Amino acid sequence: MVGNIFIRGFTLVSCQRRKNLFKFKKYGTILTASLTLFSARSTMDTKNFMAPPITPVEKLEKNSDDMKTKMELMIMKVQHEVCRALENEDTTKFKIDRWERKEGGGGISCVLQNGKVFEKAGVNISVVEGTLPPSAVAQMRSRGKRLEEGTLPFFAAGISAVIHPVNPMVPTIHFNYRYFEVQSGNEIQWWFGGGTDLTPYYLNTADCIHFHNTLKQACDKHDLSYYPKFKKWCDDYFHVVHRGERRGIGGIFFDDLDKPDQEKCFKFVTDCANAVLPSYIPLVQRHKIANYTKVEREWQLLRRGRYVEFNLIYDRGTKFGLHTPGARYESILMSLPLYAKWEYMHEPSEESPEGTLLEVLRNPREWADLPAPNELN
Amino acid sequence: MVGNIFIRGFTLVSCQRRKNLFKFKKYGTILTASLTLFSARSTMDTKNFMAPPITPVEKLEKNSDDMKTKMELMIMKVQHEVCRALENEDTTKFKIDRWERKEGGGGISCVLQNGKVFEKAGVNISVVEGTLPPSAVAQMRSRGKRLEEGTLPFFAAGISAVIHPVNPMVPTIHFNYRYFEVQSGNEIQWWFGGGTDLTPYYLNTADCIHFHNTLKQACDKHDLSYYPKFKKWCDDYFHVVHRGERRGIGGIFFDDLDKPDQEKCFKFVTDCANAVLPSYIPLVQRHKIANYTKVEREWQLLRRGRYVEFNLIYDRGTKFGLHTPGARYESILMSLPLYAKWEYMHEPSEESPEGTLLEVLRNPREWADLPAPNELN
Repeated sequence: MVGNIFIRGFTLVSCQRRKNLFKFKKYGTILTASLTLFSARSTMDTKNFMAPPITPVEKLEKNSDDMKTKMELMIMKVQHEVCRALENEDTTKFKIDRWERKEGGGGISCVLQNGKVFEKAGVNISVVEGTLPPSAVAQMRSRGKRLEEGTLPFFAAGISAVIHPVNPMVPTIHFNYRYFEVQSGNEIQWWFGGGTDLTPYYLNTADCIHFHNTLKQACDKHDLSYYPKFKKWCDDYFHVVHRGERRGIGGIFFDDLDKPDQEKCFKFVTDCANAVLPSYIPLVQRHKIANYTKVEREWQLLRRGRYVEFNLIYDRGTKFGLHTPGARYESILMSLPLYAKWEYMHEPSEESPEGTLLEVLRNPREWADLPAPNELN
Repeated sequence: MVGNIFIRGFTLVSCQRRKNLFKFKKYGTILTASLTLFSARSTMDTKNFMAPPITPVEKLEKNSDDMKTKMELMIMKVQHEVCRALENEDTTKFKIDRWERKEGGGGISCVLQNGKVFEKAGVNISVVEGTLPPSAVAQMRSRGKRLEEGTLPFFAAGISAVIHPVNPMVPTIHFNYRYFEVQSGNEIQWWFGGGTDLTPYYLNTADCIHFHNTLKQACDKHDLSYYPKFKKWCDDYFHVVHRGERRGIGGIFFDDLDKPDQEKCFKFVTDCANAVLPSYIPLVQRHKIANYTKVEREWQLLRRGRYVEFNLIYDRGTKFGLHTPGARYESILMSLPLYAKWEYMHEPSEESPEGTLLEVLRNPREWADLPAPNELN
């Protein structure tokens, strides 16, 4: 039983800005605890987290210059900001699960389900360490990492989110930013990866331009070659190969980033993560109360079926996750929509709004080259 | 574009027992043709097929003793019988797509969608030939086939079906029977594979016993070791590993069957295929008008989500199909339900009917050992 491999840490059943007052549910017992539990003794600003960090605060404070610490604190902060911003658009609140992993580390899964605006929104962080199996090491070696063969100690910290809105006029967004360390002999190899991409159900040019431009601005601050390179990487990655379609209208995607130096990479990834809300929230606000028909809802469900196809057949993260012993499948599969549909031989006419979207999914566009629309600026 | 690799043969837009009168739609033009087109000149009984066979009738007649011919005719007959039996339980008819494959051969996909009794039912046959890529040959060699390395000519004929009913009290059924030939040097290696399995949403012991006993009887006629061996193989195969659950309550599953001889294997596979309707139709008739609640419908959708997980993550046939150049993905993905659902952390109580099903999915039972119920006998 995969599920039993986990030691579930505890579940916060209520976490709604009540002046640091949290309620914890641990194996059926309700405990009431204050955030001072993990912040009073510290100078570290942990108040605005969804749950206590995975790494003990004392250890974080002691190693405040370590990239592992910086990354954990950054993703905790982004998780909180994203969850609060989404809650501000909805009437439902996030449920929070803080879990621990027998093999080392753990995570915090925040899920909002059956909201008025968001049908299913999951914002996960995980901070894990342990031993990479030889197959994973071999896969990394094939990507050019200088690693010994066999099993190797590793550390990984990342944030990952998928937001599926109710209204078919509001696109789905996914983002993921992660930091990886692998120890080989006395040397530690490290790298960053991540990306943000948008999956609309109906094409809105102004949305696409705004979304891509926001990501481009975050990239351009660091390196003018980043956006074009990572935009193409994103189009290539989110490819539902058997259908010859992209999952959505793309965004940015990158992996194995270890140049020019660790600090600069971290700043870049931080800026990308901070660009998520400005790239997306205006789209939510603009369309969340749009009228839509049953036909448009059914089309959204069909496209969500394609989303499931990509995630379960092609997505490296999902595959890696599900095949890792001790993986928390509920957090991995949180990316799947609440509802999806598969209809045999559904072929919208080319002239229809559905056909217009398909055309763009088959032939990705350079959105950032288009003139910025007035509506969103 | 994967979709464009196909030469779609033609689509029969109407095929409802009108004394052999079929209507063909070819690239938008409606042609009317009679089944005498392919049966008048022949002594072969092709009247009761859903569409003309994939192999020209002349060739089938000329090679009537060839196993390729026997298998094609058998699966065409079973396809017709299954489709008509399902139509008899519903008010909606099957739509028929006959397609050809540029690389050789083709198939007939029959789909009934949005019926009163069946939400989505797909019954496919395919008869294909061509060249196996080196990766597929290597995979077969690793299973013990005596084959040269590299690309090799192959032939495959099979029937595959998934029936997703509307009513959560009616289980989903899947079956697949196939014949394979690979040429290596002057030698032809052949084998059969297949199976039938049931996926209930609510456990009904009488249904499970009837279903397994029907399959067991088909097996026992040929070899008393078949049922226990193939029942276990089925439990092992339909394993949603990350959840520690089986997809359903099993049935039989086998592959690489090439003993005691070709004719006996063919008879066994034919008997298995003929056992599908008697194993399943009584369950449909018994439960199709059962009352059910919204909660039961939502549970059915959640279980259909698990069905999608198995098919897209683990099923060898789906993976092999989608990664084969020129694959007709619409026929492969026909197995997916019309609607599916994923809810984060859905955990039914152990005592509930949903929990009772889960217990059986986690710990497969020996249904054929239980006393046969009166209701279905």
